[in-house]
Amino acid sequence: MSTLQNRQFKLTSRPTGMVKRGDFEFVSTPAGEPGPGEALVKVLYLSLDPAMRGWMNAGRSYIAPVGIGEVMRAGGIGRVVASKDAALAVGDTVVGMTGVQDYAIAKAKELTKVDARLAPLPRYLGALGMPGLTAYFGLLDIGQPKEGETVVVSAAAGAVGAVVGQIAKIKGCRVVGIAGGPDKCRYIVEELGFDAAVDYKNEDVRAGLARHCPKGIDIYFDNVGGDILDTVLSMLARRARVIVCGAISQYNNHEAIQGPRNYLSLLVNHALMEGFVVFDYAARFPEGVQALAGWMFGGKLKAREDVVEGLETFPDTLQKLFRGENFGKLVIKVADE
Amino acid sequence: MSTLQNRQFKLTSRPTGMVKRGDFEFVSTPAGEPGPGEALVKVLYLSLDPAMRGWMNAGRSYIAPVGIGEVMRAGGIGRVVASKDAALAVGDTVVGMTGVQDYAIAKAKELTKVDARLAPLPRYLGALGMPGLTAYFGLLDIGQPKEGETVVVSAAAGAVGAVVGQIAKIKGCRVVGIAGGPDKCRYIVEELGFDAAVDYKNEDVRAGLARHCPKGIDIYFDNVGGDILDTVLSMLARRARVIVCGAISQYNNHEAIQGPRNYLSLLVNHALMEGFVVFDYAARFPEGVQALAGWMFGGKLKAREDVVEGLETFPDTLQKLFRGENFGKLVIKVADE
Repeated sequence: MSTLQNRQFKLTSRPTGMVKRGDFEFVSTPAGEPGPGEALVKVLYLSLDPAMRGWMNAGRSYIAPVGIGEVMRAGGIGRVVASKDAALAVGDTVVGMTGVQDYAIAKAKELTKVDARLAPLPRYLGALGMPGLTAYFGLLDIGQPKEGETVVVSAAAGAVGAVVGQIAKIKGCRVVGIAGGPDKCRYIVEELGFDAAVDYKNEDVRAGLARHCPKGIDIYFDNVGGDILDTVLSMLARRARVIVCGAISQYNNHEAIQGPRNYLSLLVNHALMEGFVVFDYAARFPEGVQALAGWMFGGKLKAREDVVEGLETFPDTLQKLFRGENFGKLVIKVADE
Repeated sequence: MSTLQNRQFKLTSRPTGMVKRGDFEFVSTPAGEPGPGEALVKVLYLSLDPAMRGWMNAGRSYIAPVGIGEVMRAGGIGRVVASKDAALAVGDTVVGMTGVQDYAIAKAKELTKVDARLAPLPRYLGALGMPGLTAYFGLLDIGQPKEGETVVVSAAAGAVGAVVGQIAKIKGCRVVGIAGGPDKCRYIVEELGFDAAVDYKNEDVRAGLARHCPKGIDIYFDNVGGDILDTVLSMLARRARVIVCGAISQYNNHEAIQGPRNYLSLLVNHALMEGFVVFDYAARFPEGVQALAGWMFGGKLKAREDVVEGLETFPDTLQKLFRGENFGKLVIKVADE
């Protein structure tokens, strides 16, 4: 065991603006041995998520920041290679917060066993994992979509947005996605069944939304913040619900976050804006996974992953995420299955 | 009838920045005669409300803007001097949208009869009128206060804020008011029974709120927007509710409204921000009036009015409102009772 070499990305400084390679050090140490109640997991795929940027900042949040000198936090899927807990056996496939490294030692109770035969492994980091659950609880619990309502989602081809739009279609809504570039826009309409797409890189978002949302916007699932949020706020229907899931346009700002200047649209329209993080719903994860898996195996929920090879690419792959260059759930393949 | 002279303030231009006398013309015309189903009302008191600033702007809102050349919209209380509707008799005291003038012709069904013996007339424009109802529905329907929660209200000595704080006390909450100057701060604590006050003109709001809200803020009733809203957002408790009632700090801006930069606190704390206007609750006004009157006659709800004499003062009195110089509900006395 102790001969296993473990490459790790450790956070060495709190980034200002866009995260960069120099904010990490890439080191190699022995993998170590699991203690009682723990397992040693060989990481196969790592999840790249917008929330990672927030974890790098100092200060109070829903979760403690990654400490300087600590392994960068990340969700991952891997295989148990040693276990000191009766609940896990060597060979089990598990999901959990593995960190950006080849091998993770984690408490068995913080790892979730999954069936590797049911879906491609990266999907457990996407539509069947945290992003899927984020879409499920945010849209259904906060958004409370009703048949015939108009739902708009930003970052619509992304890991969360793609699931949001498909669940909204399942619930009988009119769904308009905002995505960057013709390929993503074509994908969400032709492959995922959205009613329309607005290409924020190549068309005026206000004009596009006005065309596709003639009765106003009942639900907006926001992953991006910034100008797009402001545009949507100006087009809310009465009693609209704005779900604050993320603000990827703002996470790498050098300056203060841009607040929604049109927030008084909430007043005029008796609308609400509510935020959440998926961990708020931890007690209901089994319900969410069951629903998502049911839709997936029933052919109503499609997913796509964007797989980049090699742990060593981590800082660059994370930048790719923030530049919006991934197409589907972005994961790093760390090792062969 | 037709010999009655009616002085009127008509809107002549859409103001930029602070409203000014030159945005109106002050004219005098015959009062006219009520048509079928209408009454002629002699205005006694006029209500001055922050919302009036919004009514002067062009563009879609919850209510049409005041047209250029039209009498400025305002709520008022007055006495029926002629009636062509069976529901109203000469001598009745009525509340309604009278406009900024000596005499109003209004549809009888848009006027509400009140009992002039039960309370001073200006109170029907304040704690027993729209401001009181605004406090009642905003706090109770959106805020859903629970015993022991911490409630913060801005413009706390104002017509709405003073009622919000007293209802929150009735509901068993800890109540902290934000107001400008030592007199208003002393008033809300010593007269109205708030637990604490923060004087935004003379102390650091963050430090004051931190001292008085050690467990964070569960409910914020916002009348002011701007920096104070941002400060409160950074101090929300989990599952907090921010009630967006107004943004008086922003209404006279020359530039765009300042959006709440800390809105991602909603995400971190699973909090919500919901807006409303009191007219959304029109169907429930009788319930609200009954509750407010009950508390008032039971000695649990106190009110104060700031009465300025003379219709001709209207533009200056409106400026006084936006400078926060009124102490209690601001009304103009138009004529002797």
